[in-house]
Amino acid sequence: MDGKMKVCVLTGKQSLEWIEREIPKPGPGELQIKLEYVGVCGSDLHFYQEGQLANWKLNGPLALGHEPGGVVSAIGEGVEGFQPGDRVALEPAVPCGKCEDCRKGNYNLCRNIKMLAIPGERDGVFAEYCVHDASMCYKLPQNVSTMEGGLIEPLSVGLHATELSNAKVGETAIVLGSGCIGLCTVMSLRARGVSQIYVADVLDKRLEKAMEVGATRVFNSRKESIEEFAKTLPGGGADQVYECAGNRITTLQTCRLIRRAGKVTLVGVSPEPVLELDIATLNAMEGTIYSVYRYRNLYPKAIEAVSSGVIPLKKIVSHTFDFKDCIEAIEYSLEHKGEVIKSVVKF
Amino acid sequence: MDGKMKVCVLTGKQSLEWIEREIPKPGPGELQIKLEYVGVCGSDLHFYQEGQLANWKLNGPLALGHEPGGVVSAIGEGVEGFQPGDRVALEPAVPCGKCEDCRKGNYNLCRNIKMLAIPGERDGVFAEYCVHDASMCYKLPQNVSTMEGGLIEPLSVGLHATELSNAKVGETAIVLGSGCIGLCTVMSLRARGVSQIYVADVLDKRLEKAMEVGATRVFNSRKESIEEFAKTLPGGGADQVYECAGNRITTLQTCRLIRRAGKVTLVGVSPEPVLELDIATLNAMEGTIYSVYRYRNLYPKAIEAVSSGVIPLKKIVSHTFDFKDCIEAIEYSLEHKGEVIKSVVKF
Amino acid sequence: MDGKMKVCVLTGKQSLEWIEREIPKPGPGELQIKLEYVGVCGSDLHFYQEGQLANWKLNGPLALGHEPGGVVSAIGEGVEGFQPGDRVALEPAVPCGKCEDCRKGNYNLCRNIKMLAIPGERDGVFAEYCVHDASMCYKLPQNVSTMEGGLIEPLSVGLHATELSNAKVGETAIVLGSGCIGLCTVMSLRARGVSQIYVADVLDKRLEKAMEVGATRVFNSRKESIEEFAKTLPGGGADQVYECAGNRITTLQTCRLIRRAGKVTLVGVSPEPVLELDIATLNAMEGTIYSVYRYRNLYPKAIEAVSSGVIPLKKIVSHTFDFKDCIEAIEYSLEHKGEVIKSVVKF
Amino acid sequence: MDGKMKVCVLTGKQSLEWIEREIPKPGPGELQIKLEYVGVCGSDLHFYQEGQLANWKLNGPLALGHEPGGVVSAIGEGVEGFQPGDRVALEPAVPCGKCEDCRKGNYNLCRNIKMLAIPGERDGVFAEYCVHDASMCYKLPQNVSTMEGGLIEPLSVGLHATELSNAKVGETAIVLGSGCIGLCTVMSLRARGVSQIYVADVLDKRLEKAMEVGATRVFNSRKESIEEFAKTLPGGGADQVYECAGNRITTLQTCRLIRRAGKVTLVGVSPEPVLELDIATLNAMEGTIYSVYRYRNLYPKAIEAVSSGVIPLKKIVSHTFDFKDCIEAIEYSLEHKGEVIKSVVKF
Repeated sequence: MDGKMKVCVLTGKQSLEWIEREIPKPGPGELQIKLEYVGVCGSDLHFYQEGQLANWKLNGPLALGHEPGGVVSAIGEGVEGFQPGDRVALEPAVPCGKCEDCRKGNYNLCRNIKMLAIPGERDGVFAEYCVHDASMCYKLPQNVSTMEGGLIEPLSVGLHATELSNAKVGETAIVLGSGCIGLCTVMSLRARGVSQIYVADVLDKRLEKAMEVGATRVFNSRKESIEEFAKTLPGGGADQVYECAGNRITTLQTCRLIRRAGKVTLVGVSPEPVLELDIATLNAMEGTIYSVYRYRNLYPKAIEAVSSGVIPLKKIVSHTFDFKDCIEAIEYSLEHKGEVIKSVVKF
Repeated sequence: MDGKMKVCVLTGKQSLEWIEREIPKPGPGELQIKLEYVGVCGSDLHFYQEGQLANWKLNGPLALGHEPGGVVSAIGEGVEGFQPGDRVALEPAVPCGKCEDCRKGNYNLCRNIKMLAIPGERDGVFAEYCVHDASMCYKLPQNVSTMEGGLIEPLSVGLHATELSNAKVGETAIVLGSGCIGLCTVMSLRARGVSQIYVADVLDKRLEKAMEVGATRVFNSRKESIEEFAKTLPGGGADQVYECAGNRITTLQTCRLIRRAGKVTLVGVSPEPVLELDIATLNAMEGTIYSVYRYRNLYPKAIEAVSSGVIPLKKIVSHTFDFKDCIEAIEYSLEHKGEVIKSVVKF
Repeated sequence: MDGKMKVCVLTGKQSLEWIEREIPKPGPGELQIKLEYVGVCGSDLHFYQEGQLANWKLNGPLALGHEPGGVVSAIGEGVEGFQPGDRVALEPAVPCGKCEDCRKGNYNLCRNIKMLAIPGERDGVFAEYCVHDASMCYKLPQNVSTMEGGLIEPLSVGLHATELSNAKVGETAIVLGSGCIGLCTVMSLRARGVSQIYVADVLDKRLEKAMEVGATRVFNSRKESIEEFAKTLPGGGADQVYECAGNRITTLQTCRLIRRAGKVTLVGVSPEPVLELDIATLNAMEGTIYSVYRYRNLYPKAIEAVSSGVIPLKKIVSHTFDFKDCIEAIEYSLEHKGEVIKSVVKF
Repeated sequence: MDGKMKVCVLTGKQSLEWIEREIPKPGPGELQIKLEYVGVCGSDLHFYQEGQLANWKLNGPLALGHEPGGVVSAIGEGVEGFQPGDRVALEPAVPCGKCEDCRKGNYNLCRNIKMLAIPGERDGVFAEYCVHDASMCYKLPQNVSTMEGGLIEPLSVGLHATELSNAKVGETAIVLGSGCIGLCTVMSLRARGVSQIYVADVLDKRLEKAMEVGATRVFNSRKESIEEFAKTLPGGGADQVYECAGNRITTLQTCRLIRRAGKVTLVGVSPEPVLELDIATLNAMEGTIYSVYRYRNLYPKAIEAVSSGVIPLKKIVSHTFDFKDCIEAIEYSLEHKGEVIKSVVKF
């Protein structure tokens, strides 16, 4: 496709604008994609609200959006295995393939990586078209929609967290935080055969959704103590604890919730550099703490899990907005945190 | 319970007899169990047919049966946490807890282990009562029957195999052999989120059952080649291959069915000491071969998986016999291999 | 041996006394040991100084000492493989062998464990004789002394830490704290082929010893910043970081010293329950944190490593005291921290 | 460097010729290297003798040699971090960095890999100059020679084998075959702290060398049985067994030499597709079999291990030939197998 397209860009703190750009042409090894669905991520909201994300600062207008599903509209030189019309999920970060971390298989840690919607790396996908490295595009089977294709991104975080910590059939797990990433973690645990999953949050709407996607029991932390509950589990704690809230209080809770040889996985983004942990308890339990930075090597597996029905991915979507209402999608999601679980933008 | 009980003992090759014995009293740390269900295992059939099992030879009348579920009928000195009437599954082999292998957690490899129905170790449970170390008895939740309690034994083999090989969400697996252990492997793979499971056998009845418990597609090896099919998988082979037939031909097939970095797990009992493998292909794929000797640390997890519905264990039972027809149960199972998938004896 | 023996017991905060007791007789499965060497551990010093250790409080006179080497003086019923006169190292904590943690191989986490010099568990070995479960006694080869036998205890901590974190040939490591456990960690890293080992402490005497046992370079943290140095390593940090000081400041440093996919291992005992960590950096590096509680399954390997010369264990001993000067050994070690690296008591 | 260079090419079975070619210019991302040392590998000998290697057949003149060390003589566009005159080791196979296997970190299994001295991939380095992807060139420290740089290649095989099988401090190992790869395995085991290493071969010269690089004891299999010896080890077998001979008989031996939970690693190239293994023993021991295909992510670590003295790499070289005698190097090495351990060609 040639011509112009609409793009929604962030130009400053709490300032989104519509602009027009040339539709990008696919270079060698690239695909041009007509977007169909893009998920709205917590980091999009954060970037909009603060005008920065962690250490990344705006250095010009930046399109947000990094959870894309779409249709191949043009094919770059040398690309094999794709045809216009193919429906695809796009893994948003493109690694170099040559550095030490890539060579070790840790391509999510590549220092030359180019991630969508990150200043200095790539523009985001709140735009009608984008181009992307074909090696990071994955064809979707008939029974997986491009909306689900977009949601493969947060699902991969949950799958990665549960693979790092090697959650097993018959173990008990506690998930702290029941937003999109918490729910993806619950679904991933279920997929791995973990059947005792206890979820804590402060928003009832989210806890209801947690029950819907596989939680055994939920705790509204304003009313009930997950710490007290954990002590009643066999062994005095859970085998697996996942921090998915990115919160000072829940981070401090983690080590107090595990049993001997238990595992803590920090999935949420830390709200401040330095946080407190209960190291004495960690030590007495000989626990292990994993941390999660995005994901790697999971898109094909995640798509297969959705296609086969192992993961009921679309259940997490609570709100759909048209692309023309993209700005509203972001503002609404920010203002109605108690109600919005996951928004997606439809093109 | 005191008094006499009936026991069905093997006295020689193809010779089973009914005798009467004193009901055993529980020693310190032991429970006395009134049996309710005992599964009939392939090794029971083999022992009956050949009068020996691997290197174990009869040295007197031996009760067969090592897949027991029952009810606690008396409690030995010093046992805590059990009450008469508790419904339990019995893990049949009792390790010493002190040797190097026990200390490392590999208690299934304990050289002082005492296994049910093994000459020189313990008598089997084709008997009205037995005594067993309380530390190897596991209480069953309300919704798990003592029949399922007995079947925890073969299920644990399947779970152990899939844990050793670390089968993951989204991987592809081939299972060679669709008897009880093959089916338990299929269910364990499903429980771990593996959704592409291809099963080969030569008996249609077993393949139907494989479809029922979670196989994606089945192959009757008399009519269709699993080797040809494996080449059509992405990567030219499966991530995981499980040999569950204990057969010279399927063992030779294993290495030819994996993709690069694929894994072969030998679950079946080798029919002869020395077998052939396609080592050149294994090497070119940099594959790994795991072997399975019973299981360890899985009873509580397996019970939880059945209780939560993750594993549809009772589906594998095709035939039920009364304890008084115990001999028939063994003979019928041997003579009708094409029809019998799993027999259980009910007390 | 029968009769009376001298025992040095802690009766209160900073109060050690000599008493006489019956020489204990070995029960079934036990050995009676004539002690030859016992190491003085930091936890002995701490117990003496504070009158308590973590949550363990004195409930009567308690002998300290849990790093014993000695000679078999009598043999209990049913013990095989030992003879009077055998020189042995004693693993001080005796697990139950039957609980879930023991069965999994994590016997160091056994909740029924009986550890020397812990109130309510076992008396310590600042005594002429002791009895011990034979399954936790290990014969020493000709070229390993009973002094080294006693030091197998702290060495096992270092070996366990480096096994958990899987330190590999060619990796870089930073060790924070150069006391006995820090030095044992340095030696264990060297044994595993790690050749770039950077050690930080505030006491020059300890840093000299670190160089002697295999450090590549040492940093006196009062004068030089290990954080600045770590940034100059390839990848901007170390593959492995070991906290061996049990200190608030060094614990906070750990996550700032690793490279991408790096590992932090908390070996030191936490000085307070709650400590701060740089979680944002941990997350950006996708680091893992291991914690260490004693050790398991390492005595035979540690003895072999000393016997073969892979570990120069005796180099860490700086001071030797006679058993009659046992109280002085403890007081001197406390008062001369800058000078004493490791004291042992000789019988 | 411009102009012409001499190249020694294989033109058919047992036919090597000298030709002249243009010195190749480095493309973008590449370095031009003036070769200083190239090791002679068993696969070079095999290719020469048979005119083919496994399934690779000559399709034109092919330079052999894939163990190169040299000096940077020119630098391609976009290459950073190298200067003319830098001494380097060249990892001979260049992966694509984009396929599924590369992304997982298994770049040695990349199906688009370009390996030196493989028909259809890359020409070998029995030539005065070569060009190579800079990302696969590694600078050598002062104290590592370019001869050692060439030998990093076989060393990496040994390191990879011992990493896959996770050989640990204090374990016992048996190495079958004491040629270059067997010796590199012995040195890698030593580097990892394995101190009991038993080596079997039929050539005394090789066994002497094994003792020199760290074996505990050697067995000439014509005179002594390693199988008998293995039974006398604690546990009745070794923790680790490495097949480095690529031989039918030693492959059959492997499973008979391990203890419970022991590991077999097949390092040697299988002489025929199908080989026999003692599967019943493997099963009874619950052993694991690893196979080795080249290596990955090890060059920097291997160089560090040589530089720090952990690995006495140059000891394995028995014969040095001038580049002009390159053909003799190959013929001599073939004809004097009992005498030649490792030949290198010097430029």
